[in-house]
Amino acid sequence: MAGEAELIERYFRLLGAVRTDVALGIGDDAALLRVPAGQELVQTTDALVCGAHFLPDDDPEAVGHRLLAANLSDVAAMGGEPAWALLSLTLPDVDEAWLAAFARGLGLLARRHAVALVGGNLARGPLQASLTLSGFVPGGRALRRSGAQAGDELWASGWPGEARAGLALRHPQLRATPLAGAGALDAAVRGHLVSRWERPEARVALGIALRGLASAAIDVSDGLWADLGRLAQASGCRALVEEEALPVSAALRAAAGHEAAAELLCGGEDYELCVAAPPAQSAALQSAAAAAGVALARIGRLAPGSGIQLLRGGAVTQFTSPGFDHFAG
Amino acid sequence: MAGEAELIERYFRLLGAVRTDVALGIGDDAALLRVPAGQELVQTTDALVCGAHFLPDDDPEAVGHRLLAANLSDVAAMGGEPAWALLSLTLPDVDEAWLAAFARGLGLLARRHAVALVGGNLARGPLQASLTLSGFVPGGRALRRSGAQAGDELWASGWPGEARAGLALRHPQLRATPLAGAGALDAAVRGHLVSRWERPEARVALGIALRGLASAAIDVSDGLWADLGRLAQASGCRALVEEEALPVSAALRAAAGHEAAAELLCGGEDYELCVAAPPAQSAALQSAAAAAGVALARIGRLAPGSGIQLLRGGAVTQFTSPGFDHFAG
Repeated sequence: MAGEAELIERYFRLLGAVRTDVALGIGDDAALLRVPAGQELVQTTDALVCGAHFLPDDDPEAVGHRLLAANLSDVAAMGGEPAWALLSLTLPDVDEAWLAAFARGLGLLARRHAVALVGGNLARGPLQASLTLSGFVPGGRALRRSGAQAGDELWASGWPGEARAGLALRHPQLRATPLAGAGALDAAVRGHLVSRWERPEARVALGIALRGLASAAIDVSDGLWADLGRLAQASGCRALVEEEALPVSAALRAAAGHEAAAELLCGGEDYELCVAAPPAQSAALQSAAAAAGVALARIGRLAPGSGIQLLRGGAVTQFTSPGFDHFAG
Repeated sequence: MAGEAELIERYFRLLGAVRTDVALGIGDDAALLRVPAGQELVQTTDALVCGAHFLPDDDPEAVGHRLLAANLSDVAAMGGEPAWALLSLTLPDVDEAWLAAFARGLGLLARRHAVALVGGNLARGPLQASLTLSGFVPGGRALRRSGAQAGDELWASGWPGEARAGLALRHPQLRATPLAGAGALDAAVRGHLVSRWERPEARVALGIALRGLASAAIDVSDGLWADLGRLAQASGCRALVEEEALPVSAALRAAAGHEAAAELLCGGEDYELCVAAPPAQSAALQSAAAAAGVALARIGRLAPGSGIQLLRGGAVTQFTSPGFDHFAG
C-alpha cells in the first residue's frame, strides 16, 4: 500500500492553480508564501464530516468541490480574493479511486478560483476533510459583519434555499424536510436542486465587487435567518425582512410549496451572501452583481434596535427559524 | 445544549496570545491578519485523530498541547516565528469538561509561543482535531530540506526516541514496542518519558537561531531515519550517521536497552530538529543551541550519493527502519 508521502505526492502535490506567490508548496515541513504589499490576509477553515455533511456513497468529486466552496464562501463574505489552501484529510483506508475523484473535484474548483493547494496532512481515521483557505483583501477594505447601520438596505444573493432542498432530495436521512412537491418533481428541476447542494458556487467575484459599496456582509451557510441575525447583532441593528421580497426560485417553490420554501431559505447549506449597504449604493450594488453574474435581491432594511422581524404586507408577522447548528440541542 | 457559536465563544475566542497583527479574530466569516513587510508566510497543518494519535481517556489538556506542538515543530523546522492558528475540531457530543481542558492545553502553549487562535470550526463527528498554523520568516531565509550539500555536518536536537518510548509506556496498544526495561523503570523516569510524548516542546527558538547557519533542516516527527532520508534526498546527498554519536538519553536507555533505543530513535513522535550545516558553522551552531537551551548533537555528515548509512566504529553497518507512516502497508 502506498505511504502517506507517496499518496500526497500522487494526488495533492501541485493541485489547483500555479501561483507565483507560492515560494514553496507541498513537500517540505511547511509552505512559504508571499502576501502582496498593502494586502491583509483573510483566513478561514471549514470541514466536511462523513455521516454529518455527506455520506459514504456521495460522489467524492462533489465532496472535494463542496469542501473548497464552503471556504471560498467565507473568503467571499469578507470581500477577499482566495489564494492558498491547506488540506487535512483522514481516511479509514486508502481508497485510491475515492482519493483521485476527491482531488479532482477540489482541484477543478481551485483552478477556477486561482487557488493553489500548498499543504496537506493525511492520516488514518474516520472519513473527514478539513480545509484552511487564505486570501487577500486590500488593507482596511474587508467586508465585516459589523459595519452596517440603521437605514442600510439588506440584500441576498442568488437563490437561497435551493441547496437545502437539494440536500433534502439527495439525503432525506441527513436532515429530514417535508418537500410537498418532491414526488411530482421534474427530473431536470430535481437535478438542478441536488447540484446546488453538491456543487455550490461561492460568490467570490460578487464579494470582491462589493468592496467599497457594502457596509457589511456575511455568508448564509447556517441559514439566511441565523446569519442575518448575526449581521444585525454585530452591527447593533434590527433587521426588517419583507417576506414578499425573499428570492424564492421557481425550482424551490416547485419542490417545497410556498410555506416550506420560506423555511428552506433559512435552512443553511447555501453559499450565498447577505449584504447591507446604504440606499445611495443601490444602483452601484445592482451593477456590481450584474457584472459578477449573480442575482441580488433587496430583502429589507436595518432599523434601530435588535433582532429580526418578518414583514408580510408591511405588518410584522411571527416567524422564527434558528438555522442550522451542529450542536443545538 | 450550547450551540456551535456559543461553544466557540466560550472556549476558543481570544484563546492564546493577544497580537496587534490580528485585525480581526474569531467572530466573523474569516480572520483578517497583517503580515509584516519583508516577511514570507510559513503555513502548515497537522491533525490528531482519536484512536490513532490519542485515546479517549487521554488528558485533553495534553491533546490540545500536542496538537499545537506538532504544528509549531513544522514552523520551527523552517526557521519560522509562529503567529496565528485556526482550529477545526469534531466532537461526537458536547463534553464541556473535555473542551475546557483541551482549550486550556492549547491556549497555554499558544501564549508561550505568542500564537493567537484566529479561527475555528466545530462540527459533530468522531473525535479529532486539526490545526493550521501560520508564521513568518524573513524573505529568502527559511530553512528548507533541500539546501544542504556534501561535506555538511548533520546535527540532531534534544533527545529523540524519548517521546516514542513515552507513547509505548502510556499506550502500548497504539503502537507496540518491546521496552526491555519498562518493568523495572523508576517512576520519575517513566513520568519524564510519558511527558515527553504528552507535552512535547517544539524547537521554535532553535529554528529561529539556525537562520543563516544551517543549510537545511527538517523535523523528525516521522522518525530520525525517515526524515533524515528526506533531507538527504531533497539535498541530493548521502547521509552518514555515526551510531556512537546518536543522542541516546539515560532515560531512553533505561527504558529500552541499547538496541531498542536505537530503534526508538527512529520511531517518530519526536518534535526535534535534524539539521545540516557546513563544518565552518559548527561553533556558531553550538552557541545558538546553547542560547536556545537545547542540546544539539553532531550525528554524522553528508557525502555525495544517496540514501543513509549507519557507521559503527567507522564501518558501515546494516540498519534500516522506515519510520512511522500512517498508510504504510
